[in-house]
Amino acid sequence: MTIKNVCILGAGTLGTRVALQSALSGYKVSIYDINPKASEQSKKVMEKIVHQLAKSANLEADAGLNAIEGIIFTDIPANAVMDADIINESVLEDYAVKKEVWTLFGQIAPEKTIFTTNTSYMLPSMFADFSGRPEKFCALHFHDVFYSKVVDIMPHTGTDSDLIPLLMDFGRSLEQVPVFVKKENPGYIFNSMLMAFIGAAGKLITNHVGSIEDIDRSWMVNFHMPMGPFGILDSIGLDTAWHVTSSQKDTASQKFAAFLKTYVDAGKLGEKTGEGFYTYPNPAYRSKGFIE
Amino acid sequence: MTIKNVCILGAGTLGTRVALQSALSGYKVSIYDINPKASEQSKKVMEKIVHQLAKSANLEADAGLNAIEGIIFTDIPANAVMDADIINESVLEDYAVKKEVWTLFGQIAPEKTIFTTNTSYMLPSMFADFSGRPEKFCALHFHDVFYSKVVDIMPHTGTDSDLIPLLMDFGRSLEQVPVFVKKENPGYIFNSMLMAFIGAAGKLITNHVGSIEDIDRSWMVNFHMPMGPFGILDSIGLDTAWHVTSSQKDTASQKFAAFLKTYVDAGKLGEKTGEGFYTYPNPAYRSKGFIE
Ligand SMILES: NC(=O)c1ccc[n+]([C@@H]2O[C@H](COP(=O)([O-])OP(=O)(O)OC[C@H]3O[C@@H](n4cnc5c(N)ncnc54)[C@H](O)[C@@H]3O)[C@@H](O)[C@H]2O)c1
Ligand SMILES: NC(=O)c1ccc[n+]([C@@H]2O[C@H](COP(=O)([O-])OP(=O)(O)OC[C@H]3O[C@@H](n4cnc5c(N)ncnc54)[C@H](O)[C@@H]3O)[C@@H](O)[C@H]2O)c1
Repeated sequence: MTIKNVCILGAGTLGTRVALQSALSGYKVSIYDINPKASEQSKKVMEKIVHQLAKSANLEADAGLNAIEGIIFTDIPANAVMDADIINESVLEDYAVKKEVWTLFGQIAPEKTIFTTNTSYMLPSMFADFSGRPEKFCALHFHDVFYSKVVDIMPHTGTDSDLIPLLMDFGRSLEQVPVFVKKENPGYIFNSMLMAFIGAAGKLITNHVGSIEDIDRSWMVNFHMPMGPFGILDSIGLDTAWHVTSSQKDTASQKFAAFLKTYVDAGKLGEKTGEGFYTYPNPAYRSKGFIE
Repeated sequence: MTIKNVCILGAGTLGTRVALQSALSGYKVSIYDINPKASEQSKKVMEKIVHQLAKSANLEADAGLNAIEGIIFTDIPANAVMDADIINESVLEDYAVKKEVWTLFGQIAPEKTIFTTNTSYMLPSMFADFSGRPEKFCALHFHDVFYSKVVDIMPHTGTDSDLIPLLMDFGRSLEQVPVFVKKENPGYIFNSMLMAFIGAAGKLITNHVGSIEDIDRSWMVNFHMPMGPFGILDSIGLDTAWHVTSSQKDTASQKFAAFLKTYVDAGKLGEKTGEGFYTYPNPAYRSKGFIE
């Protein structure tokens, strides 16, 4: 089969980006959100991204804005999925919400539609059966589409294996690097490594081995990277980081979660609140002299 | 006190580089190795590095070669340490060898000499007493001096705290970013994080979650880095990686060590033998199309 019509569920941070890239790549795109206000906001974000891309990538702003004009924004499920070849679901990361959404779209989607979810921490097997077509259900997990251009393709044991090459090609057509996750793994591939290294940074800080700045410096200078683990945590959001860390049961994670909690309780959630381990918009790690 | 005279013990990979940077930074440098042939080799490596630096950094080749001419290469301990303000020890990573070296230099070094070790995996407290001046003993751990410009300053509990700012300044004068490791931690700061993320990659491969290439791709594309964990392992050397991993007692590390062992047994030690996870000099991860 050939994918032409793409239906995105959820017009939040990620749905907006996947929808935009799909439109830029020439697909016919519809995007559905239960909240009618989400559409308006989503369109604004798309326009902003297009203007940014027009500055740095080779995209004509006009072509980008035209692509946005072609997108159907809707809060009516049936309109969104009418002729969809593929759904990529990016609704709230909440089990009950995703279960409800997949039950609904399993009933109203055309038979041809492939079902994919963008869940960050859950697994496709948790929703495959609710969708009514487990063999057509797979995780297709984007990172942030425009900066980190990785897409994970992670089937559950019941996924039809013919879907894999098709989704790999679809990922490539969206200018992503497809990564095949051979079996279900919470956090796919990158997140497992990210969490391990962030956990090690957490151990260093709770064991008072080094300062936040020195731990970040070590990483930045050795790997020639623009941020270290604590800068990265600030960009992830310390509430999210606390959430993930506190769900792990080992002592080191619990100690680190308690440490993160002191920031969360003080309203310091990272970049989005203007303060976390660093203050924004001009965090110390971006200043000249930080790594000198 | 002011540091003027630098004495390097061990003219191998690291000693050579620290000695060269010290000379380039204007210090009077002596370098001692028990093996008289090491000097010759060391000088050749220095010349090679100077020619490389002359291409990419702002160094005049002549000035660099002059700096090398000023270095005293010797296999006579007393000649090396005669007027040393500081020793940085880079002899073989072997407890018995380092113990012997520190016992000897503790006896023959001038009273003013500060003692520092470059050990990668051991701790300063393991040698401080043998040196006879534990209060002047500290780890001063370089990474590779010219590419990863971090220097860790890690005291043991008996180190005089006045030494810390002095060593931080000394590190800066060698164009390194100093990182203060507040208390003894095996692997300092960076290595703890590196080993954690490499261990997570090991878990992904031994649990058959993704291919070597896909795991590397995830890391490279998300972090915009030129190598992923398996490329990094090839450059560290799979024998070293096996050595470190097999010394860890948890099941995941043991499984990963067994996996690494199959490469080591096949003579595939990574970049240095021309083959590891990838083949060299043109590994797949450097080819166009690997991350497309
Ligand atoms: N933000 C990221 O960087 C990122 C990266 C990878 C994956 N994800 C995943 O993508 C999904 C969405 O994340 P996000 O960051 O875009 O969240 P978000 O909160 O920005 O957006 C979620 C959207 O879902 C909508 N929604 C809620 N209930 C709904 C329903 N019943 N039907 C339709 N829409 C509904 C909300 O109105 C909101 O617009 C999550 O599963 C998340 O794990 C996010
Ligand atoms: N290579 C690296 O990237 C690196 C990085 C950080 C720290 N280190 C540390 O630096 C030290 C040296 O590592 P290397 O990679 O340069 O090793 P190497 O094998 O290249 O060099 C070691 C040198 O020590 C000499 N030596 C052996 N016994 C001696 C003795 N009794 N007296 C004097 N010299 C003696 C050897 O002849 C050899 O030239 C180790 O402690 C290592 O952990 C290495």
